[in-house]
Amino acid sequence: MSEPRYDVIAIGNAIVDIIAACDDATIEELQLNRGGMTLVDADGADTLYAAMGPATEKSGGSAANTLAGLAELGTQCAFIGQVAKDQFGEVFAHDIRAAGIDFDTPMLEGGEPTGRCLIFVTPDGERTMNTFLGAGQVLPAEALDEELIASGAILYLEGYLWDPEEPRRAMRRAIDVARKAGRKIAFTASESFVIDRHGDDFRAMIEDGVLDILFVNESELATLTGEAEFEAGLAAIAGKVPVLVATRGPDGAVAIAHGERAEVAAEPVEAVVDTTGAGDQFAAGFLSGHAKGEPLAVCLKRGAIAAAEVISHYGPRPEADMQKLMADKLA
Amino acid sequence: MSEPRYDVIAIGNAIVDIIAACDDATIEELQLNRGGMTLVDADGADTLYAAMGPATEKSGGSAANTLAGLAELGTQCAFIGQVAKDQFGEVFAHDIRAAGIDFDTPMLEGGEPTGRCLIFVTPDGERTMNTFLGAGQVLPAEALDEELIASGAILYLEGYLWDPEEPRRAMRRAIDVARKAGRKIAFTASESFVIDRHGDDFRAMIEDGVLDILFVNESELATLTGEAEFEAGLAAIAGKVPVLVATRGPDGAVAIAHGERAEVAAEPVEAVVDTTGAGDQFAAGFLSGHAKGEPLAVCLKRGAIAAAEVISHYGPRPEADMQKLMADKLA
Repeated sequence: MSEPRYDVIAIGNAIVDIIAACDDATIEELQLNRGGMTLVDADGADTLYAAMGPATEKSGGSAANTLAGLAELGTQCAFIGQVAKDQFGEVFAHDIRAAGIDFDTPMLEGGEPTGRCLIFVTPDGERTMNTFLGAGQVLPAEALDEELIASGAILYLEGYLWDPEEPRRAMRRAIDVARKAGRKIAFTASESFVIDRHGDDFRAMIEDGVLDILFVNESELATLTGEAEFEAGLAAIAGKVPVLVATRGPDGAVAIAHGERAEVAAEPVEAVVDTTGAGDQFAAGFLSGHAKGEPLAVCLKRGAIAAAEVISHYGPRPEADMQKLMADKLA
Repeated sequence: MSEPRYDVIAIGNAIVDIIAACDDATIEELQLNRGGMTLVDADGADTLYAAMGPATEKSGGSAANTLAGLAELGTQCAFIGQVAKDQFGEVFAHDIRAAGIDFDTPMLEGGEPTGRCLIFVTPDGERTMNTFLGAGQVLPAEALDEELIASGAILYLEGYLWDPEEPRRAMRRAIDVARKAGRKIAFTASESFVIDRHGDDFRAMIEDGVLDILFVNESELATLTGEAEFEAGLAAIAGKVPVLVATRGPDGAVAIAHGERAEVAAEPVEAVVDTTGAGDQFAAGFLSGHAKGEPLAVCLKRGAIAAAEVISHYGPRPEADMQKLMADKLA
């Protein structure tokens, strides 16, 4: 087992976010799944876009956002994800490379366009996401650079991408490659609907000890374990994954690692502008500490700080000098 | 002469802005024209983009930004400008329509891509723009909807678009159509380099009484008149255009209309984040008052309020509820 070249390698959706503020009535009128992520087809995306106010485009994608946060915190990262050879694909590729992340997945030509996520942000800062996966649905197992995957200390996988068939196969292959190389597998459940559809896969991976680090939020934990009560949900799987991180939005987060438990309160923010990326950046903050072997409570605190920064502005990736922010807040 | 259907119809560049914060050293290293607008070709744009940090995309274009501000202030507007049939073209078209502006210029197919402007914003909030015009260079006179142009009380033209030949011919044609319909012509000089190249055109239009409303900033006024001193510059053309508006950034603005002179101080802002769109929104605020026949000093104050809002955040178009902001500030 050679020394890993990267701290974290992630496989995830390569998506450009299209973000607009909206009022609560718009969510009602468009019958959107408030606070959730809903998959839409190309026509559905066009219809919603036409109903959306003037917008801003920023690179997104859950695991890609986490890597952007990790890279900003000085972690060595590489990303694997499928964009098309189009303007949004160029935007995604530019932004992730400009963040200091290696990204070499070839662009898809002649097929679906690059994925996009239409994000409606209500006055309370809650984001309602509607995703057209586009090229993201066709990441083939053959596109994986196995040498690359074997070279990362942690392979980080995004639950969203477990839904479409081809990327799911690719991620299963990547898990095998990483485990054979002696690497750790980190997984974020992403969204309850993914667990509704693929919970058996996830539960089997947990039972089989495939996952080393698991990120869930409160409702995902409930869906995954069938336990409506938070503590019961934790108890159901805490012994089966070496590191379990469960976030609860404004109620903070809990981590249980190798029998040790730590908790953190949510970091106070002046105003919640846009919750997009909160979970992604919590994971980034946590992993940035975990990669350095920091104590569990510090890893959680880092997660809370990173989440608080990203919900204080529009967009899913950090905009502050995060190393300075961490140093100030952890001092 | 029929009653106009629109308050303002504008012809301008249809551009998507790609905005990133950068430090002062980057401006030096890339040898950028700090604070200015420089035209770049496709290769130049690619090179600069590769050197740019993670960015945000927002619709831009000088006259289009002004219309977005006007529409937000309740003014009826239509826009004419050339995008390509690509993702950035869809973004531009969506954003301008979502702002309540009629936009029906057919998308260009099979030619240049939609124009983009790479904007580097330094810590002082100054923007340095590098524009690849793309499809914007090929707006043909034949593409103009002459009935539309004749239906606007004011035809607003952007100096930037005077530089490429085909759009310049189109704008000359539009001026003829508007004047025959008894409409007013408003013109923004846009940038000193445009006056360097086409000053004779502009001076001839001024001498011939073609321009009813002229927007210039301090350096454009100097280039246009050859008078280095601001008051001398004003004196050189104030009698030749019915309404002259000269902005001076943090030093406020002066307007001279039909012999009457008014001045306004810059509206105070908490922090200058990004000066992109300051002139565009000053024009929007001014014209929103002018269209309602408000006193010259009120028109200027509206301009100052709109400019202050836009420099308080990234991006060239208003993000606040401008009607409420105007009501509060003018009360």
